[in-house]
Amino acid sequence: MKLPELIISIIKTQRCEYIFGVPGDYNLRFLDYIVKDKQLSWVGNCNELNAGYAADGYARENGFGVLVTTHGVGELSAANAVAGAFSEDVPLLQIVGYPKQSILNLDLPVHHTLANSNKNNFIQSYKPLCCAISLLNEHNYCYEISRVIQEILIQKKPGYIGLPVDLVDLDITNMCNEIEINPYYFTQKVSTSILNNIQKKIIKSKKPVLLIGEDIKKFNWINSVLSFINTVGIPFASALSAKAVISENHPLFVGMYAGQYNLEGRAKIFNSDCIITIGTKDTDFTTGGFSESQIDLKNVIQIRHDYIKISNTIYPSNLDVNDLLERLGSKLSQRTITHEDIKKCKVKRVGFNLQKKLEQNTFWAYISSHIIKDNDIIVADTGTSVFGLLDEYLPQKINFYSQLLWASIGYSLPASLGFALANKNKRILLFIGDGAFQLTGQELSSIKKVNANIIIFLICNEGYTVERAIHGPYEAYNDISAWDYEMFARSLGFSYVYKVNSLQCLEKINMKSHQSEPVLIQCFFDKMDIPSLLKEVTDNLKK
Amino acid sequence: MKLPELIISIIKTQRCEYIFGVPGDYNLRFLDYIVKDKQLSWVGNCNELNAGYAADGYARENGFGVLVTTHGVGELSAANAVAGAFSEDVPLLQIVGYPKQSILNLDLPVHHTLANSNKNNFIQSYKPLCCAISLLNEHNYCYEISRVIQEILIQKKPGYIGLPVDLVDLDITNMCNEIEINPYYFTQKVSTSILNNIQKKIIKSKKPVLLIGEDIKKFNWINSVLSFINTVGIPFASALSAKAVISENHPLFVGMYAGQYNLEGRAKIFNSDCIITIGTKDTDFTTGGFSESQIDLKNVIQIRHDYIKISNTIYPSNLDVNDLLERLGSKLSQRTITHEDIKKCKVKRVGFNLQKKLEQNTFWAYISSHIIKDNDIIVADTGTSVFGLLDEYLPQKINFYSQLLWASIGYSLPASLGFALANKNKRILLFIGDGAFQLTGQELSSIKKVNANIIIFLICNEGYTVERAIHGPYEAYNDISAWDYEMFARSLGFSYVYKVNSLQCLEKINMKSHQSEPVLIQCFFDKMDIPSLLKEVTDNLKK
Ligand SMILES: Cc1ncc(C[n+]2csc(CCOP(=O)(O)OP(=O)(O)O)c2C)c(N)n1
Ligand SMILES: Cc1ncc(C[n+]2csc(CCOP(=O)(O)OP(=O)(O)O)c2C)c(N)n1
Repeated sequence: MKLPELIISIIKTQRCEYIFGVPGDYNLRFLDYIVKDKQLSWVGNCNELNAGYAADGYARENGFGVLVTTHGVGELSAANAVAGAFSEDVPLLQIVGYPKQSILNLDLPVHHTLANSNKNNFIQSYKPLCCAISLLNEHNYCYEISRVIQEILIQKKPGYIGLPVDLVDLDITNMCNEIEINPYYFTQKVSTSILNNIQKKIIKSKKPVLLIGEDIKKFNWINSVLSFINTVGIPFASALSAKAVISENHPLFVGMYAGQYNLEGRAKIFNSDCIITIGTKDTDFTTGGFSESQIDLKNVIQIRHDYIKISNTIYPSNLDVNDLLERLGSKLSQRTITHEDIKKCKVKRVGFNLQKKLEQNTFWAYISSHIIKDNDIIVADTGTSVFGLLDEYLPQKINFYSQLLWASIGYSLPASLGFALANKNKRILLFIGDGAFQLTGQELSSIKKVNANIIIFLICNEGYTVERAIHGPYEAYNDISAWDYEMFARSLGFSYVYKVNSLQCLEKINMKSHQSEPVLIQCFFDKMDIPSLLKEVTDNLKK
Repeated sequence: MKLPELIISIIKTQRCEYIFGVPGDYNLRFLDYIVKDKQLSWVGNCNELNAGYAADGYARENGFGVLVTTHGVGELSAANAVAGAFSEDVPLLQIVGYPKQSILNLDLPVHHTLANSNKNNFIQSYKPLCCAISLLNEHNYCYEISRVIQEILIQKKPGYIGLPVDLVDLDITNMCNEIEINPYYFTQKVSTSILNNIQKKIIKSKKPVLLIGEDIKKFNWINSVLSFINTVGIPFASALSAKAVISENHPLFVGMYAGQYNLEGRAKIFNSDCIITIGTKDTDFTTGGFSESQIDLKNVIQIRHDYIKISNTIYPSNLDVNDLLERLGSKLSQRTITHEDIKKCKVKRVGFNLQKKLEQNTFWAYISSHIIKDNDIIVADTGTSVFGLLDEYLPQKINFYSQLLWASIGYSLPASLGFALANKNKRILLFIGDGAFQLTGQELSSIKKVNANIIIFLICNEGYTVERAIHGPYEAYNDISAWDYEMFARSLGFSYVYKVNSLQCLEKINMKSHQSEPVLIQCFFDKMDIPSLLKEVTDNLKK
């Protein structure tokens, strides 16, 4: 048995079927083991950033993803993708092909190095971007492989393994050739006194409400949260970063909440006298620019993986949130809570003007009510797309993906390849601006190569509209080069390309019949047209 | 006067007219100062890696280049480009837009951060990739701006300035608002005794020869080297990394040298009893895989910026090489040295078969003798292109660019945009493989936008031929997606696109008349067809 087989066997325990990356002479012989493995497929991407994004998308859907790059030139090209995975808690393993050990040990100035006698240069660069990093050798490989993968799975952050090209030949038949991964971490049950405390606060309150955050997904609390909601009958709102994590057509869902930002059908949780947050992370965007001022903090119970905060008192803890919710639920189950004044005003939109030129104002409402269906995967790039979609109610069982914190434009297109490969039964609707598209657009060719089930809505508005809304609306730096996107997509193998000026045009496109081919739909908007949520956000950024 | 104006005034002292990058909300207000400056033009690129490559190309031609990115997502996307500039000694300044200082000081989890309370994350990542880094504030800006730019110019390496968005408003009218940059570094004249030593060794020898390396360009020794050659009449060879730095039709030029690698018309310097190297850096590729064994080290005099080595003795020094060459030249001027057995056997190629299918074997000879003209800028990507071209004699006054050490594929295309903007009077011939093209090909649209005078030869051989030569000739990981490159180029605005199967087709293309438009020429080769130098290199890599 050779070392690569050990690495691959562990990757397979994480249900990985697709590996992303770009070859290089330092990793070619490792790739041999991937292509000859019957359960694995190698997805060669156009470049390493795109490969990193695709692996990130795959990891978000699958729970683990793998990216293979080559030393220096390859790995550094993927740095932004890996940092994004760190920022947004994605369990991603990057395997980097290194020069052979005799060269590393002498720190020789070989190709793809900085020629300054430091084999650790790029490991240094990756330190802040990974939860665990290792350069393997024949002595450490057993311990280090398990350490890195374990950390990735526990922390849900990227990790890095450097594999010198000669180690590919290492025969481990009579050495450590089996590793069990057990991503265990210690949690503790909340004390009865704290639990009573929480219970009392809720019972005493007139209008308790739950605010769910993205960590309920990261830490697998979704089911407990859902049964808590159902048992107690408590209304819940969702932070922007937890969009659709629990279906938005749940009868107790009261809307999205983002601090001062006014959302369509916004959850009015600030009216509540008891707000219980679960797994929220407060970033500029999810808090309306850190604008919690409308909320009286003494009414807040904050439940996180690392502490509970009741009013102003913090109780640090490796909290077993599932247990807490179950115990709390059973104590509260008698009561059903409803109160009109935090209930959402569900906007009923009828009568779209189908002939009219597309407008951001109605487009997203139409998309969410007429185009998006139950079980779809929705992907929004950073641009008017995400601001438009966040503000709409989505059907049930939607996986909604957007980099709300890292917000790297162009991410969503290669990431959709990853979503598609991790979930072949679902339809993926991708919404991306023309500016963002220009960063990573060539990856259409990989999407076509595997005929991923992706419908791409290209928001054509002649440049960086989000930026125009922030600063310099008519400045040249917010313009982009003119592309013929239809011709571009066709040059990369797309057969189904449409141009859409009105909802009527959109209605005519059959979005079911192309299951075996990806589709690109260009949607044309005025370059100064922005969704209302974006206006709020940018007004705030200007402050 | 505002802080950005100070930064821009210093940039302009370095003759910069074009600034490359991608906007982001943390840098938009700095960009205002660029677009409103009459002597500067903003070149928005499709993405940050491409922008970094373009700025690197501009810096190589101009002596200084500037890249502007945004925090996190932007800067990290350019990491590979900046590392390449470090590896290959390119004076490049990256200006990164940062969040405002009040946010930085509280380490708030805003967009484009890792949300882990460390404003220095990306500075950490950039540490190994830059010679100087600074995050500006109102106290340090004067000292830090001069320090970073000074280091860039002295070390010819990239530097990094972080500019918090609120500092753009800093009024410096009554503060430090002028900085003089004086990239001085101390050099010392060689002692008479060492000089005599060198002189004696050369006089005693029967077949002295000079080997020039890339550092004669970096440190401005070219003129001294040239007059030394002319005064003494000594034959000279060139390391691969100094290709065409001194015109190859110089009568005393004896060819390229790369250790054991057999080059067409290779300089047989190992026959010499006195090899004087000037400014060579020994990397795997330039030394034939560290294969100096054919050379007797006691015959070598090594002249570098940091030491002189005579036989086996090293004399460390901040060497004033220009002075050394001048003094040495005047001592030796009496003698003219020629000797047949290290003289190049200049290959006369006549009678190309014009009808035949293109073959790597003859293509590069044809290109160098029939297509490339005096004063052209030649750019070769890492692939069969660079191996093909290195092995041919080029006309005079050629600037030859290729990343021989960093070797990041896709680099050459955006870099050519930089070369073109830094030197509008020259024609640029770019040779790039289809694999490399897929990494950065969208930057054609920026090339078209400015109508750069670039003729692109796209080497179409269905994938990563260099890699096939190294390992896995028929493996799927060396294939690439099928693109219609003609349609691709047209979709990005190219009007002149040709397909070429034989030299005859090539002959028919007028390469002068398109001065106002870039041109793409697809050249089709068999996927296993490789130039002979590549065969040598890959045979060696396999060892
Ligand atoms: C990699 C990266 N570079 C730059 C930015 C800064 N940025 C944020 S939004 C945006 C414009 C997006 O424009 P587009 O994709 O066309 O969407 P639109 O708002 O026009 O719908 C830019 C440049 C970023 N977020 N990520
Ligand atoms: C950014 C980057 N990723 C990967 C590599 C590894 N690599 C070196 S050469 C090469 C193939 C180049 O193929 P192509 O550009 O088609 O040129 P050809 O040899 O076919 O002419 C690859 C993938 C690299 N050098 N740089």
